[in-house]
Amino acid sequence: MMQPPPASPGMREDEIDTPALIIDLDAFESNLDTMAALLAPTGVRLRAHAKTHKSPVIARMQMARGAVGSCVQKVAEAEALAWGGIPDILVSNEVVGAAKLARLCALARIATVAICADDAGQVAAIEAAAADAGIRMTVLVEIDVGAGRCGVRPGSDAVALATRIARSKHLIFGGLQAYQGSAQHKRTQAERQTLIAVAAVATRRTVEQLRQQGIGCAIVGGAGTGTFQIEAQSGVYTEMQAGSYVFMDADYARNLDGEGHPVSTFRHALFVLSTVMSQAQTGVAVLDAGLKALAVDSGMPTVWQRPDIRYAGASDEHGKLQFGSETTAPRTGEKLRLVPGHCDPTVDRYDWYVGVRNGRVECLWPVAARGGMN
Amino acid sequence: MMQPPPASPGMREDEIDTPALIIDLDAFESNLDTMAALLAPTGVRLRAHAKTHKSPVIARMQMARGAVGSCVQKVAEAEALAWGGIPDILVSNEVVGAAKLARLCALARIATVAICADDAGQVAAIEAAAADAGIRMTVLVEIDVGAGRCGVRPGSDAVALATRIARSKHLIFGGLQAYQGSAQHKRTQAERQTLIAVAAVATRRTVEQLRQQGIGCAIVGGAGTGTFQIEAQSGVYTEMQAGSYVFMDADYARNLDGEGHPVSTFRHALFVLSTVMSQAQTGVAVLDAGLKALAVDSGMPTVWQRPDIRYAGASDEHGKLQFGSETTAPRTGEKLRLVPGHCDPTVDRYDWYVGVRNGRVECLWPVAARGGMN
Repeated sequence: MMQPPPASPGMREDEIDTPALIIDLDAFESNLDTMAALLAPTGVRLRAHAKTHKSPVIARMQMARGAVGSCVQKVAEAEALAWGGIPDILVSNEVVGAAKLARLCALARIATVAICADDAGQVAAIEAAAADAGIRMTVLVEIDVGAGRCGVRPGSDAVALATRIARSKHLIFGGLQAYQGSAQHKRTQAERQTLIAVAAVATRRTVEQLRQQGIGCAIVGGAGTGTFQIEAQSGVYTEMQAGSYVFMDADYARNLDGEGHPVSTFRHALFVLSTVMSQAQTGVAVLDAGLKALAVDSGMPTVWQRPDIRYAGASDEHGKLQFGSETTAPRTGEKLRLVPGHCDPTVDRYDWYVGVRNGRVECLWPVAARGGMN
Repeated sequence: MMQPPPASPGMREDEIDTPALIIDLDAFESNLDTMAALLAPTGVRLRAHAKTHKSPVIARMQMARGAVGSCVQKVAEAEALAWGGIPDILVSNEVVGAAKLARLCALARIATVAICADDAGQVAAIEAAAADAGIRMTVLVEIDVGAGRCGVRPGSDAVALATRIARSKHLIFGGLQAYQGSAQHKRTQAERQTLIAVAAVATRRTVEQLRQQGIGCAIVGGAGTGTFQIEAQSGVYTEMQAGSYVFMDADYARNLDGEGHPVSTFRHALFVLSTVMSQAQTGVAVLDAGLKALAVDSGMPTVWQRPDIRYAGASDEHGKLQFGSETTAPRTGEKLRLVPGHCDPTVDRYDWYVGVRNGRVECLWPVAARGGMN
């Protein structure tokens, strides 16, 4: 149920067993540095989202470059990070169910933990769990700033819920969660700017109304890899929750900048290494990485630095490559790097990261919260 | 990296922590019985595909009803089954790489193991691995019967490869692998019959040509849940490799029978149990099961016995339900069963099956080969 690592430190990349989840360490560290450099002049904090990497090792690297802590979506992710030494964790999501809330309250004894709510019933449930555990829990109000998923309406509904939290004996009102998820993959910069401008107006208005009630927001959090530079300039957000920037994926690579060129702020650092296992058909090669090895919800993977080869389709355990007659056919046994269409759910299929630099395996890191859905 | 079980035996279904992978044991056992009853009069053997369930517990239940063993796609799956007591395992797939072949040869000391090949170079590699391990390995020739993925051409190419296997000192020619994967989800029975008729003609011709060379086929294997009744009647196939029939999924449920009605041979036995975690928007409820909890490559899940509620979209950790004004909105904390769009890659996200009967948890079974891609 837990798989052994597909490599050992010191191996050459072409000796790694496949499919394997590999990190190009140079590109990865460059991404960490770039984010730190971009946010430093804004004064906005980074609370990088660990739902992407599910690794306290990576979360510590982000904190070493200035991040104040991590975000997660699930209690199981919070546990993996807290147990791995991350001192400050925000569950940027609602958590429903007494057993889950009890687990989160238990973590509050070894880390600073906060949670989101968008419903008075949930606030009561968190209050009960915190009282039972004998702790005080920080709760943010999630507001819907345009994605139409979770979150109360900005303005008076949010103020009412925040007031309820602030008056609960075992709760601390922590601020606002204001993530516009549907803006992240809008292809043009103008679309992303328009959506985040709307989100920022709604968020600012809510912060103001809270202030008028004497309620301050320690955290105003949101933003993703597609838009964080816009939120960071807004003057209202205080914490950026981007996650995918550490790895990037084929879908984010399709976002365009103001000049209509692909955004090149971050580098592809995450790959699925795959082996050609059959080439019985002309113009086709079959890889050992299919639906179980790669998330295809945001499109097929691309073949790294091989624009002449198309990953045309995935079945459960196979990926079908197609290429023209001018391409030298990949030979059986050859290993190719794939850029996943979507990094987060691809990572979640693997137990191990294999860190590679200069063609050699440098490290193995566990995907500590792999499968942590609860 | 391995998650704790989300339930304990004796719990009520509504006490199971979510997301959870649950098996309706009555429906599941009915499916096992139905397959055994359908194949018994044909004289064709069942070698059920374990890539669906990844569980030696379930494989043993299939064998208790007459299956001769299991198929798998990966060496890691073969290991999980052999270590779990399954005595006869066919890797119905090519395996490339010396390390993987050495692992498979090691298993041959505790189970009967066979493998497929579609390339002379692979035959040489398997011969070398078997010689090195001091065993004889059974090798089937995979032929392409229409899916255009792996497999040599039926006829003389297949005969040449079989002859090479039969002449290899440490190999035994085991027969033909003739799976027509692209027929399984053709919606009309006529389409499925046409494709399998073509596959059966090509397979029969190859079996005949081998016989003329004095080479017998102990196994002629193929077929899936969508077509096995057609292959079983063909007179040429000897082993059926259906896997999904144990669970079914929303995609298979869209196949039609000869009268244009949905095929109802097997029952939905696999569900993802999910909790409503937000209902901040009118006409919308948000579930705690998204892309990381469910495979969406073959379409969104359906909500079990709730045709009035649509699972409209999945993000990483959220599923968005939509419904009309006539529907009583699911309340926060309510648990709903989802029928996954595609069972195999959904199962592969979970460490545990939770077996449920009459509203109670009856058993926990590990998804022993979860993540077993290598």
